[in-house]
Amino acid sequence: MSLSHSAAEDRLLPLRNMLAASGFDAIAFVPGSNFRRIFATSFSLMERPLVIIVANDGEAAAIVPKLEMAAFEKLDFPGPVFAWRDEEGYGAAFAAAADALPGLADASRFGLEAQRMRAFEQMALQKAFPDARLVDAHQALSTIRLVKTPDEIARLKEAIRISEQALEATLAKVRVGQTEKEIEAILLRQMFAHGADGLAFEPIVAAGDNAAQPHAHARADYRIKAGDALLFDFGASHRGYHADITRTFFVAEVSDYDRAFYETVLAANERGRQVARAGIGAHDVDDAVQTLLEASQFSPFIRHKTGHGLGLDVHEAPQIMRGNHDILLPGMVFTIEPGLYREGECGVRIEDDVVVTGDGIECLTSFPRQLRIVG
Amino acid sequence: MSLSHSAAEDRLLPLRNMLAASGFDAIAFVPGSNFRRIFATSFSLMERPLVIIVANDGEAAAIVPKLEMAAFEKLDFPGPVFAWRDEEGYGAAFAAAADALPGLADASRFGLEAQRMRAFEQMALQKAFPDARLVDAHQALSTIRLVKTPDEIARLKEAIRISEQALEATLAKVRVGQTEKEIEAILLRQMFAHGADGLAFEPIVAAGDNAAQPHAHARADYRIKAGDALLFDFGASHRGYHADITRTFFVAEVSDYDRAFYETVLAANERGRQVARAGIGAHDVDDAVQTLLEASQFSPFIRHKTGHGLGLDVHEAPQIMRGNHDILLPGMVFTIEPGLYREGECGVRIEDDVVVTGDGIECLTSFPRQLRIVG
Repeated sequence: MSLSHSAAEDRLLPLRNMLAASGFDAIAFVPGSNFRRIFATSFSLMERPLVIIVANDGEAAAIVPKLEMAAFEKLDFPGPVFAWRDEEGYGAAFAAAADALPGLADASRFGLEAQRMRAFEQMALQKAFPDARLVDAHQALSTIRLVKTPDEIARLKEAIRISEQALEATLAKVRVGQTEKEIEAILLRQMFAHGADGLAFEPIVAAGDNAAQPHAHARADYRIKAGDALLFDFGASHRGYHADITRTFFVAEVSDYDRAFYETVLAANERGRQVARAGIGAHDVDDAVQTLLEASQFSPFIRHKTGHGLGLDVHEAPQIMRGNHDILLPGMVFTIEPGLYREGECGVRIEDDVVVTGDGIECLTSFPRQLRIVG
Repeated sequence: MSLSHSAAEDRLLPLRNMLAASGFDAIAFVPGSNFRRIFATSFSLMERPLVIIVANDGEAAAIVPKLEMAAFEKLDFPGPVFAWRDEEGYGAAFAAAADALPGLADASRFGLEAQRMRAFEQMALQKAFPDARLVDAHQALSTIRLVKTPDEIARLKEAIRISEQALEATLAKVRVGQTEKEIEAILLRQMFAHGADGLAFEPIVAAGDNAAQPHAHARADYRIKAGDALLFDFGASHRGYHADITRTFFVAEVSDYDRAFYETVLAANERGRQVARAGIGAHDVDDAVQTLLEASQFSPFIRHKTGHGLGLDVHEAPQIMRGNHDILLPGMVFTIEPGLYREGECGVRIEDDVVVTGDGIECLTSFPRQLRIVG
């Protein structure tokens, strides 16, 4: 336990600002991307609850598994820390945290990091604060990491560099007749050979009809053949930050129809990169991209929005989606990834990662986008 | 939507049996390890809820993002499926599922997969079933995959083979003066070079005082030196299944005191592998291991229980822990991983993965355990 101030107090400042701006009485959160942004370290989210509570009056408390205490103590947490052991369970630690935060007993807007916190942690909180109304504060909390720091941008760039080099090295080894799984294995090896320290997500390597599934799994029993689209959606991780890149190639040859299909997606991708800039809404980017796709001969094959924020999470705010009128600010990072999907036949997606600058965007991804024949 | 029976109905049979045995009115669960065991496929858990509800009267319903529908339809789900689009939100789909399951409106034991389901999904369920009492059914649900099939054991063995070969290849490259991060990077490359299709978890490569942190992170600024313990806790994934192996080495030399420390952990590991067998409780394995450690000169350095179940999750049932009197059955897989931790000085953990057989255990890990000097 530590009651020292200074650096540790400063860490909670973005949370206090968020609470003041959003009107929540408190925020409860768990290890994950928000935790990492705040404390610059992480803990694994397993069967043992580790929950931080910060109230809008400045008080804070933590519930921490005994096993994690040595690591947690390094955070110099500015409030009481209630450790619990496997043998005794965590109920008493939650109750003690509630006693330490009497101002929250009947909070009407006790915010939770609800897309990350799990139901059993929520249940433990509700039991400890039986008269508080627990509400979803995920979106408000996520605002603390909407605008990236230069260090975050540098890490994203490194994750992207590793990913793009791995893709180029993989393409050099792609041959007609390989299975999707074989190509996936090559890509995985190349990512780590080029310096990945983790995977942003399980890569998608999908050919032919499988490319028409936006979230496909590589198949061990499908061999790529001439005329197939071959879609890679993947990313390396570097020091907590993730690349998220999609490129679609054609194997050995491409039909005129598929070429037109591809060029339409590419035009939509270019449109998104052209219009994105500080001061407009996330809505406006998606609207420009969707309008282009809708006006094409391929409008029946639209399946999803333009993109999502990218950083410590692979999917985070801002959602680049019609209806989201949040204003883009310099330092926000998101994907531009239009796609078209002809069920049972072919899918094309072209995804870039961009950061909003003073006068437009900087595209962090630089892998060429022109139609390319591989294998 | 599909109302067909047969294979899809059979898939839900373990759930119906679990509901009958446990007395829950229903179980609600999300994509993850239980979902994968039931449906033999997976979906990413992101910002879009995908929730399955199965009631004890045999009815079932699913709430599915429109974007995932093409993949979900392949499951031939035996009940109504309510798809929702980003633009409209998921509230109406949850409400429609509640209408389709009127028997659950005032359920008093509506079970949730509470260590996996997130708070925002629970909130959406509670809103759709305002008079139902949502309770944690995670442990009961996890029983459906306590006993592994031969196919699951085969996948675990392959994940372990890959991991052990990667460790041997890594040790061949370890040199005094490398940083923990450099060694971690070698291990990552070797895992994928040997056929990993993913990581069970972010590996732990920790030397010297860092090895005394059970959940350490590799440091970029610490170079291994003579006399350091060098601990690897890591695992490759193979087709959804995870290895979880720890071995501790010493760099260049080892003191007599550290040798005795190591041999004590090794004796505890051996003890665990000797006593584990069908018919005894998980408690009894931990009790035998802890009793040995407690009787040693190093008893102040005990920090955790003996082990945990292993399969589609890296940490799952059964917990090998005093107080857990669940009986071990043939086909259960778990870790035996005693450790000792001298804060600021040295840590040793030796972890094997075992499957319970008819007359003891089969040890799935075979990497040598005798004290080894590396670098």
